[in-house]
Amino acid sequence: MKEVKIALLGLGVVGGGTYKILTEERETIKERYGVDIVVAKVMERDIQKAKALGIPNSALTTDIEDIAKDKEISVVAEFFGGVDFAKHCLLRCLDEGKSIVTANKEMFAKSWEELERHAKKSGAGLYFEASCVGGVPVIRALCESLQGNKVVALKGIVNGTTNFILSKMYDEGIDYQTCLKEAQQLGYAEANPTADVEGFDSSYKIRILSSLAFGVNLPLNKIYREGITAISTEIIEEAKTLGYTVKLIASGKNNGAEIQAHVYPALIPLSHPLSSVKEAYNALYVTGNNVGDLMFYGKGAGERPTGSALVSDIVKASTDQVKIRFPFIEIPKKSTKTLPLTTF
Amino acid sequence: MKEVKIALLGLGVVGGGTYKILTEERETIKERYGVDIVVAKVMERDIQKAKALGIPNSALTTDIEDIAKDKEISVVAEFFGGVDFAKHCLLRCLDEGKSIVTANKEMFAKSWEELERHAKKSGAGLYFEASCVGGVPVIRALCESLQGNKVVALKGIVNGTTNFILSKMYDEGIDYQTCLKEAQQLGYAEANPTADVEGFDSSYKIRILSSLAFGVNLPLNKIYREGITAISTEIIEEAKTLGYTVKLIASGKNNGAEIQAHVYPALIPLSHPLSSVKEAYNALYVTGNNVGDLMFYGKGAGERPTGSALVSDIVKASTDQVKIRFPFIEIPKKSTKTLPLTTF
Repeated sequence: MKEVKIALLGLGVVGGGTYKILTEERETIKERYGVDIVVAKVMERDIQKAKALGIPNSALTTDIEDIAKDKEISVVAEFFGGVDFAKHCLLRCLDEGKSIVTANKEMFAKSWEELERHAKKSGAGLYFEASCVGGVPVIRALCESLQGNKVVALKGIVNGTTNFILSKMYDEGIDYQTCLKEAQQLGYAEANPTADVEGFDSSYKIRILSSLAFGVNLPLNKIYREGITAISTEIIEEAKTLGYTVKLIASGKNNGAEIQAHVYPALIPLSHPLSSVKEAYNALYVTGNNVGDLMFYGKGAGERPTGSALVSDIVKASTDQVKIRFPFIEIPKKSTKTLPLTTF
Repeated sequence: MKEVKIALLGLGVVGGGTYKILTEERETIKERYGVDIVVAKVMERDIQKAKALGIPNSALTTDIEDIAKDKEISVVAEFFGGVDFAKHCLLRCLDEGKSIVTANKEMFAKSWEELERHAKKSGAGLYFEASCVGGVPVIRALCESLQGNKVVALKGIVNGTTNFILSKMYDEGIDYQTCLKEAQQLGYAEANPTADVEGFDSSYKIRILSSLAFGVNLPLNKIYREGITAISTEIIEEAKTLGYTVKLIASGKNNGAEIQAHVYPALIPLSHPLSSVKEAYNALYVTGNNVGDLMFYGKGAGERPTGSALVSDIVKASTDQVKIRFPFIEIPKKSTKTLPLTTF
């Protein structure tokens, strides 16, 4: 049995979930995928968190060099969040030839080219299925299932916080501020909700998804972004009367000559499959020139759904013969254009 | 650029669609996947079909040995349909070390073990994404995205013909026989519709999907099977009154001790995402112990949607370093049990 030693950076909600899944499913993974994944090191300051998970003190470190320089570790999964420190740690690991796995969409969307350069240099792999749409395997689908297609459009509900708020506003007629407060109390929204409600989080994800779908390097600053803070109960009521629901949509379009990407609150006809994606569920609707319309649906966040995608990537990184980097082709000659849209 | 020579067996609807996609997307595939796929030989009696697609006579053959013995061909995609002759041809190709790609669910469901044995012996790969749910990448998802899960349940609408008939009965109140006739006129149902309306086609697919999801070899004769011929307008009306729709469901369940698989017309609550899967669309609803509920939705049949899955497999077979066979683990000790179910 092949044994692969890995390290986890951080034990937050998703880091803890990933550790639990790796522990609970270790035998299943050995049996079905022929690899024994051993968490050899964990970078975490909070000894209590590690203790609660049953991780021995001897596996803990607070210094990335302990992991980067450990020649026995071949895969490193990052759960820190934030940009600079997470990137610093991952670049060190890539430079030492370790494949990296991450769910950190902000860091990844902002640092993809740099990570890619370092990965190429050392021959390591980049795995980021968990960065978009939680446990739903949309990145695998875009990269490994649509080879016979030109993807012409993506339309996604890719942010759980805003979908929870908008679902509640729609179903219960409650105003935005009250719904936001409830989302914060339930832990679905952060104290400072800007990244979610202003559409930044969705823009990171559509930057990643559109780049893969269209084979281009779509820069973040070319994505039109509009959040949900201006959505009033009146707008929701009017949409309802007209047979629509309102969703924060992250969309990418490729008409062959030009690529456009937008994040905006859109009117979705109730007959469209995306209209029934509620609360914490997310979905990506993909249109290929040959396959037609596809939809991928599931939980977009959470300890175990996102942990599931991270474990999938860890198993893949541990068993792939050819490391996955999904290299860009090139930034398209015609740069992307943005147009505010209010219908779907 | 790596060049891979392939052969196509048969130029029916899906075979033709696959050839068109390979031709139209050849440059995109070269650019994005680094492989030039060349259709070197085609086994087809009907010269007119080949001519219509622009395939030169010199590429045509009616003898499988011309393909099996051609050392330059490394991948063979089969479009014959039927069981015995298709299997004979594919076994010959496997024995000569060629990887095979097929959408032929009946042949595959009935001959998987035999194909597997021959593939193992020669080191060739088996690729069958297109055998279930047309262009929707459900087999990739089950095998390469859920490594951190025990799949506990599958529920699928996996047959387009019956979904067309049941959607029409539900939406328009028309009786079964009239809907069947319309499906036949539109080419959605065959002159002898038994394979679809009696649930055989769905049972082939749930045999394949459940085996992969649960890591077992689920025999066809352990699958409970009930078709839609007894569904009357009265049943549909009553379901409607109670807030349900009626769908032919192929389901697999794994409670840890026992695996069950059923094909049966089920009452689906209108709040369930599967209730809105209409007409020619198919979907697979997958529940993993960690990821929770996922749904994969798209066109379940047709020249280009199914062709898209075949081209995906052809590209994969042409580029994979490790050939994919998804070997079974073993037939579970507790044999599967069947229980007729009428609710969902």
